[in-house]
Amino acid sequence: MKIDINSDMGEGFGPYTLADDEALMAQISSANVACGYHAGDPLIMDRTVRLARDHDVDLGAHVSFPDRMGFGRRKMDMPLPELEAHVLYQIGALAAFARRADYRITHMNPHGALGNLASSVPEIAEALARATMQFDPEIAFLVLPGSALETAALQRGGKVARLFLADRGYLPNGQLAPRGTSGAVIKDEAEVVSRVLGVLQQQTLTCVTGEEIPMPVQSVLVHSDTPGAVQLARRLKQEITDAGGQIAPLTAQ
Amino acid sequence: MKIDINSDMGEGFGPYTLADDEALMAQISSANVACGYHAGDPLIMDRTVRLARDHDVDLGAHVSFPDRMGFGRRKMDMPLPELEAHVLYQIGALAAFARRADYRITHMNPHGALGNLASSVPEIAEALARATMQFDPEIAFLVLPGSALETAALQRGGKVARLFLADRGYLPNGQLAPRGTSGAVIKDEAEVVSRVLGVLQQQTLTCVTGEEIPMPVQSVLVHSDTPGAVQLARRLKQEITDAGGQIAPLTAQ
Amino acid sequence: MKIDINSDMGEGFGPYTLADDEALMAQISSANVACGYHAGDPLIMDRTVRLARDHDVDLGAHVSFPDRMGFGRRKMDMPLPELEAHVLYQIGALAAFARRADYRITHMNPHGALGNLASSVPEIAEALARATMQFDPEIAFLVLPGSALETAALQRGGKVARLFLADRGYLPNGQLAPRGTSGAVIKDEAEVVSRVLGVLQQQTLTCVTGEEIPMPVQSVLVHSDTPGAVQLARRLKQEITDAGGQIAPLTAQ
Amino acid sequence: MKIDINSDMGEGFGPYTLADDEALMAQISSANVACGYHAGDPLIMDRTVRLARDHDVDLGAHVSFPDRMGFGRRKMDMPLPELEAHVLYQIGALAAFARRADYRITHMNPHGALGNLASSVPEIAEALARATMQFDPEIAFLVLPGSALETAALQRGGKVARLFLADRGYLPNGQLAPRGTSGAVIKDEAEVVSRVLGVLQQQTLTCVTGEEIPMPVQSVLVHSDTPGAVQLARRLKQEITDAGGQIAPLTAQ
Repeated sequence: MKIDINSDMGEGFGPYTLADDEALMAQISSANVACGYHAGDPLIMDRTVRLARDHDVDLGAHVSFPDRMGFGRRKMDMPLPELEAHVLYQIGALAAFARRADYRITHMNPHGALGNLASSVPEIAEALARATMQFDPEIAFLVLPGSALETAALQRGGKVARLFLADRGYLPNGQLAPRGTSGAVIKDEAEVVSRVLGVLQQQTLTCVTGEEIPMPVQSVLVHSDTPGAVQLARRLKQEITDAGGQIAPLTAQ
Repeated sequence: MKIDINSDMGEGFGPYTLADDEALMAQISSANVACGYHAGDPLIMDRTVRLARDHDVDLGAHVSFPDRMGFGRRKMDMPLPELEAHVLYQIGALAAFARRADYRITHMNPHGALGNLASSVPEIAEALARATMQFDPEIAFLVLPGSALETAALQRGGKVARLFLADRGYLPNGQLAPRGTSGAVIKDEAEVVSRVLGVLQQQTLTCVTGEEIPMPVQSVLVHSDTPGAVQLARRLKQEITDAGGQIAPLTAQ
Repeated sequence: MKIDINSDMGEGFGPYTLADDEALMAQISSANVACGYHAGDPLIMDRTVRLARDHDVDLGAHVSFPDRMGFGRRKMDMPLPELEAHVLYQIGALAAFARRADYRITHMNPHGALGNLASSVPEIAEALARATMQFDPEIAFLVLPGSALETAALQRGGKVARLFLADRGYLPNGQLAPRGTSGAVIKDEAEVVSRVLGVLQQQTLTCVTGEEIPMPVQSVLVHSDTPGAVQLARRLKQEITDAGGQIAPLTAQ
Repeated sequence: MKIDINSDMGEGFGPYTLADDEALMAQISSANVACGYHAGDPLIMDRTVRLARDHDVDLGAHVSFPDRMGFGRRKMDMPLPELEAHVLYQIGALAAFARRADYRITHMNPHGALGNLASSVPEIAEALARATMQFDPEIAFLVLPGSALETAALQRGGKVARLFLADRGYLPNGQLAPRGTSGAVIKDEAEVVSRVLGVLQQQTLTCVTGEEIPMPVQSVLVHSDTPGAVQLARRLKQEITDAGGQIAPLTAQ
């Protein structure tokens, strides 16, 4: 009855802020921290790493294509060795702040367009898995069940933690229902919470066609940059605890 | 009778190249590698780290202000915590490539305007020393004798390696003769070589006023981006060896 | 009885927003638009230019040092020809959006650290005046009275519009009272409004020592990125109109 | 018997240089100038514009995706309004330097990955044509015959100048023979020159299958960043002149 709640953190830049990281950090158990590519900068990374450590929140590298203006949301064609180098650069930079804070990176997950490609393109998933595990084979991959990244990580003997998108509908095969289709996005907070509780207690989910499907996940994503994020996380934490469950980072599951 | 020869390496960017790193790497014993701030990029850093390792050349982080267009040569005012964060970001990123290559960062030296400030402004020198040693207290500081960075490093119990600029004239007090004054820059290759040999054999140098002054240095800088750099390094190596000396990285002295 | 109200606009970047430009644009008469150096990007510039045009708001180029992370707030040392080139680049880029929108740049003012330097360093002020007027001698300079930029612009036969900082105290000599001194910053909205009305009606201001001093200004700055900006602008507009005055862009005074 | 010789110019950045622009500018009649996106910076743009003007060389905007590290060679997915905004930003910035130099932009051509897409994807070609002609309908498009950009420009009533790649083989349908196929790349300088003379004199070319095909082009591209570029351009100029032809910019044809 343990589950991790993760959020994207440190996504400000210079004078800009996207989310209330301080409030949210108190409600979650894993932080995916931007590494200065789609968002974040050295000062913000430093602060976010210390904030995670101070809240006993697991620290993840949220790596991206180098594209601030596009917030890492647009696909960039690049050779795989270059992609690997970008991944190493980001993880290394974040690791330096962790080291100074006497903390450590426990997981990684790719952001935006890189995340989409890592779910569907095996070569890209393998480049990410390779670069990450060459840096540290203990870093877990936060993945969508069935994604190319999950496969690539497992094939290399890596750790994976499966991610549940509580506000998204699922198909009978366990994949996300495409946006725009019926039931693809769930906006009602109570329903989102009840889905998480169901997954926590039975490891199953009612999919968009009404069937119960297995949903063997270890972590729930709370979007940090939507209104109500802090409240949703707080409520999730409360209801999970009330149901006898426990919010626990991946390293404590 | 050991001396280190160091050069700035990996200062290309994207399609651009500044120096013949491959040829030069074969002649030197320490490489100061750009970290993507004044120059370098992840692909170049990856390649340069492996090149250094393959030549048993010590690996240094050549940190800078974030300023590609100005090549790190212009002063930027920034708060010290931000400066520390930039130093950590760069060292961490380089360390990731070292880790993948089963290698390690042995030294650091600041580039351009940051280097000048670290020589003369104690607070900036201390910020650099602090950030570097928080990352790894074993990293040595490649410093000008008498500089603020030397003082800051020594005060924190850090290692220093003193740098000799063989093509620059020195004042009786051991400081560099300002550019534009008589004897400030030595262009004759033979004279540069003979100065290095003198320093190697007697740990002294004839300064611009004709006096012999102590010059207790461990490393000679060869500029990588000037014509004749490779030839100068090759000649230095040959003449030092002929004189019974040895080119050795700082970690082997 | 006419006065201009100006604000800094278009200071978002990619996914980030700093101010409610749409609401504020309806209350002001001049917009100082970021040009992609300290803030702004091509999409935002395009949108902001059209927003200004649709509200009959004068369009200004808000030029800066190239420094997004520092939001243009830190001094960068650069040669004057480079500074001129950066000014031209920014004005030209903004002018392209104006041209597409069948609009025009009417004024410029430097942002942040560049603004401070342009107020106090004649060579920098002259570089800005020169580059701007070489592009278009009709572009007015929005300046602090007594600043180096005012002098430089007037010496070249340029137009100037003098700026009143309604929330700042002034010294008897007409200069700003330094931050941190008594009366240097006025936070009370009613007082800010009454100061603007006084300046509008009598062209004088009570300075921090209690004396009345002349304040021959044409434009009032409303900070766009502070809470209450839109409300302050709305109230200013209302009270100025109620007092028989008129909010008018510089080109209509 | 007039033909234009064009080259990509101003592709250095900060401390970096790619080509000998000064020597090449004396041999060509049109310069495609980088606008700070794939290469170039404000100082280099300023210098290159003046160099073009001083040699009576036509000035073109060589626009790109925003990607220095990839030198504009990798495809970036972006919405069309954003692409248009990037085009305007670049053309406007270059136009400012032209204006200061009392010169003008006469043509544009997209670089690298953007160039490839503009040749083959109608929507991208149309976005480029639209943005350019909204800025100035007199700007000509330097295009490959049969490309989407040619079509888009002509449909909007724009001017086009057709480009001949003298070192590339052509298919019977007038398209480039794909790299890697037989005859796709011509390396022999004499053959390159003789092909240009043939095209100049007869407006035809022997294609890779041996047939003569029409080649109604107005401009020949000389790659600036290959060894021998200056020599090739000089020889082309000489042999064209010897054959009674004339090197003339597009605006003088």
